[in-house]
Formats: sequence, structure tokens, C-alpha cells
Amino acid sequence: MSIAVSLPSSDKTEWWCQMLRDLMPDWNIYPIDKVPDPDAITYSVVWRPSTGAMTPFRNLKAIVSLGAGIDHVLADEKLPEDVPIIRTVGTDLTQRMKEYIALHVLRHHRELPQIQANQAAHVWDQIIVPPAPERRVGIMGLGNLGAAAAQMLAQIGFNVVGWSRSPKTITGVTTYAGDASFGTFLDGTEILVCLLPLTDSTLGILNADTFNRLKRGASVINAARGPHLVDRDLIEALSSGQIAAATLDVFHVEPLSKDHPFWGHPRITVTPHVASMIDAPTGSKIVAKNIRTFEETGSVADLADAKRGY
Amino acid sequence: MSIAVSLPSSDKTEWWCQMLRDLMPDWNIYPIDKVPDPDAITYSVVWRPSTGAMTPFRNLKAIVSLGAGIDHVLADEKLPEDVPIIRTVGTDLTQRMKEYIALHVLRHHRELPQIQANQAAHVWDQIIVPPAPERRVGIMGLGNLGAAAAQMLAQIGFNVVGWSRSPKTITGVTTYAGDASFGTFLDGTEILVCLLPLTDSTLGILNADTFNRLKRGASVINAARGPHLVDRDLIEALSSGQIAAATLDVFHVEPLSKDHPFWGHPRITVTPHVASMIDAPTGSKIVAKNIRTFEETGSVADLADAKRGY
Repeated sequence: MSIAVSLPSSDKTEWWCQMLRDLMPDWNIYPIDKVPDPDAITYSVVWRPSTGAMTPFRNLKAIVSLGAGIDHVLADEKLPEDVPIIRTVGTDLTQRMKEYIALHVLRHHRELPQIQANQAAHVWDQIIVPPAPERRVGIMGLGNLGAAAAQMLAQIGFNVVGWSRSPKTITGVTTYAGDASFGTFLDGTEILVCLLPLTDSTLGILNADTFNRLKRGASVINAARGPHLVDRDLIEALSSGQIAAATLDVFHVEPLSKDHPFWGHPRITVTPHVASMIDAPTGSKIVAKNIRTFEETGSVADLADAKRGY
Repeated sequence: MSIAVSLPSSDKTEWWCQMLRDLMPDWNIYPIDKVPDPDAITYSVVWRPSTGAMTPFRNLKAIVSLGAGIDHVLADEKLPEDVPIIRTVGTDLTQRMKEYIALHVLRHHRELPQIQANQAAHVWDQIIVPPAPERRVGIMGLGNLGAAAAQMLAQIGFNVVGWSRSPKTITGVTTYAGDASFGTFLDGTEILVCLLPLTDSTLGILNADTFNRLKRGASVINAARGPHLVDRDLIEALSSGQIAAATLDVFHVEPLSKDHPFWGHPRITVTPHVASMIDAPTGSKIVAKNIRTFEETGSVADLADAKRGY
């Protein structure tokens, strides 16, 4: 009946411990570096755990990932084998991602980066853009977050297409599935949004070949994982004009290093991995519920597939 | 069977004349300064006509305003009396306004101006904002455009309240009507959007009293008319922190003069009256249809009330 909690900062680890203690008074909840008896730990609650952090826990029933992705857990080369991984998703996280994607798609659609550059130069230039129904927006990844974002964009009025590994049906969205249809999905797309899970087959998928298939002057939004993007290919596509602008929320190394060229690039908007932040007061309720359900039934709806990678 | 067209620039006047000629081949369509016989003019199609521009047209049946507002027509002190004014509204214009309001409300909601200031300083600061359902957005004006924008924001998930002169019912939106409820409408509002018609009673409504009633640190978006805003009151409210940020699409004088302090204000976003632009290819179809309907029936759905002012 003990839980180990591990986040990259001790402040945040303590915040989560406190929230979970309030919700789960029958449980002993410890920061991972202050566990008195490793054998008593049956669950770990983690975001970017350090390598080998969970090796001492021989009685682990499940690992809770503090996010929709599990790539940050699988990155641990010494991860205990065959321990189920529970993803943390919920309406609050879906809501936040919908907002982020709607905001940044609209921002590129309405050419706000150019309008703001004009403001800086005191230039009044009435740029007329087509209305949303004439703008093709492509969503890569149609899991909980991707499907919700696609539906939101369709409600706003965009011409939305979606692409995923396995076939999906979403009201108001034209969907494509599998590698064979990836090119068709990209053809004519003007705003490309990445919400894919990070797996061996999606690593580096935002590359020169993908960019070249989009409509010239397209925009790219990456709110999935840093390694989906080949950084150098983006810089080159921005230089050539094939890509007009990009918004990036995720990076190969986070926080983004102070001297990274993305910070100062005039056509790249950097947001600090805030598209869909879990805060402890909201997230701890989802985590507590998932642990209780798993404890009682041996499973939960948001169980990840470690072999598939998401 | 003749129409006079008047826009502030001769290029745009000629563009509209050409579009209308294509759609109305039975009619003679002239730029207002090239009308051969003023008595033959039965309709004028105008945006910001100059004072007295329509005085020579003694047989005018109706004036077509190239926009949802008619304030720019009523501003003509020599306007022929008792000539009906037809507003130009349509799904395309409503769509564009919905997009603009969704974009700028989301931008303030997610604190993107601060995140972009952080980017300029290479600062990684993960600002956590509440989700949209916990954010109260107030829409002033619930005509075609205001009602559509309010509904769009409710679909995104915001807590939307609306205020108008006469009572309105909008799904998912709490509405208030009349002067007596204005304060209640403003209480707790964090993002205030102005989409009111410009009349004697709405002139200067975005003033210190209004700002002081909002939640401290609120944002203001004006996509209606420049004179709704008391410019100096906004500057002062931004200095005091009562208002955190503003987005302005409309101004007392347009284009905004090169040396206006709004251009360089770090907390004001200036967009050049593009929230809901009518372009000639789309707008001319609405205008042609309205003139034909008025010619056949003596009325149209989008007839304005000159006494009321909108």
C-alpha cells in the first residue's frame, strides 16, 4: 500500500505527493528518493524518471505515467519488465490540448505572426486570408488528444483531415490510415499538426520529405514530442519558403537550451511544453482513481501497450 | 437601373464595380465620381462615403453599407433622409468574425503575449492557466456577429456571458440585457469582447468605469468600432495593471497613424481592421442578391434601422 512519486524537480514531486496524500489517506506516499522500504512500493507515479529509478521496487504492480505519452518511461533502459504502464488522460487534459491546437492553427491561418511583424514596423497592411472552410488542416495522430483537436477544428469550420496508424472515424473529419496513405493525407495540407505518440516508426516523421509534400508556404505545429521533428530539416524548409512558419511546444532536450537557434528564429514560435500541462490538483484525481481501479480490477481504460509504444 | 459605388480608395472602388458588373449585367455600375446621370442612380453601394457624396442622387431607393455596421453611413451629415440602409452580412463574414474572436480570446486566455515575450528573452517559463471552463468571457453585443462569436466560444469550452440592449437567447451562453444589468455582466469577466454597433449610447463604452468593474488583470478585445474605446482610459488601465493586455482591430482614425502610441505599446496587439473583412468576390454576391430582393419586394432581411443606429 505504498506509492513512490518521481518528477524532475523535488518541488513538483512534493506537490504531487501532497495532493495524492489528501486523496488517498490509506496509502503511504513517498518521494522516490525517500522510500523507507522498496519492497512495500506497489505503484510508482512518474514523469521522466531517471534510469534505474524503479529497479529497487520488486513488487511493482503498475507504473503511472503523468501524461498521455509513455515514451519518457520507456526511455529508462533499466525499466522493470512486464510491469503495466497506466497513462494519465482526462477531460481536463483533452480540453487544454484542444485550446492549444485551436489557438495555434487559427494563429497561422489568420497570419497573425506576419500581422505582429507589421505592428512592430508600424505597418497597416490588411492581409485577406481565405475563410477556414477553404483551409486544409492535417492532424497526425488521432488518439484521445488528436481526435478531440480534429473535432474542435472542424467545429471552427476548417477543412480537417486526419492520419493515424489504424483507421478511425471522426465526425466532420476525413481520415486516412497507414503508411500507404500518408502522402495523400499531406497533399494540399496548409497547416500540419503533430499529435502522434513517439515510437520507432514516428521518430523523425516531421522531416524534409514530409514538408515537401505539403502545400508551399504551409505551417507546422508540433505538440507531441521533440524527436518527432528533424530540427535541421525544419530550419532548411523555413529558409527555402516551403514552410512559412512553425509553432513548437516540444523539443529534443527540455528545457530548450538558452542558445538554441529556435528561440530567436523569426518564423518559429516557441512555447515551453504547455500545450496540455497536468497540474497536480486536477491530475492527482485522475491518478488516484486509476490506481484504485487497477487495485480492484487489475486493469484500467488508459492502460498503455508497451510493445506498441503508446 | 444604375448603381453608384464608393469606397475610400479608387482601386477598391474599381474592384467592387467589376465584381458587381459581372453579377448584374443588366445594371449600369459606376464609381461614384464617374456617374454620368445622377437622376438614374437608384442604389448606392458604400463604405465610409464622403460627406454629401449621395446628395446628387434624388431617386435613391436604398443605400447599401459594405459591412454589418451603418455608423460610417450615418456619419454623413448631408445623408439623404429616409432612404433605407441595407447592411451587408453573410455566413462568410460571420465565419471570419468567429475565427478572429476565437483566436484572440484563446491568445489572451493562454497568455500567449507573455509566452512570446519570454521567447524573445529565451526564457522557459511553464505558465499554467486554468482550463477554458473556468474562464469567464463577456461578449458585448449579440447581433449576428456577437451571437455567432459567443456560441463559438461556448463550443471551445469557455464560460461565456453576453450583454445586449434587448434580451437574447443563445445556447450555452448566459445573457444580460439593458443598462441595469451591465455591471453584473462585467463582474468577474476576465476577457471582454466588444462587438456592439456604434450608437450614441455605446460611444465610449470601453472606458475606465467599465474596465474597473472587470476582474483585475482582465484582457479587452475591440473588434467593433474605434470610438467604442476611450483610448486614454485603456492606456491608464494598462499602466495600473487593472487591464493586462488588449487586442484592437478598430481605431478612431483608420489607418492608424504611424506615430500612434498603440503601435509600440507592449501590451496592445494592433490588427489592421481585418477581423471580418469583406472581399469583393464574396461580398458582391451578397450585395447583388440584396439589391435584387429589394428591387422586387421593397425590403430585405438585413435592413438597418437608421433611428436606432444599427
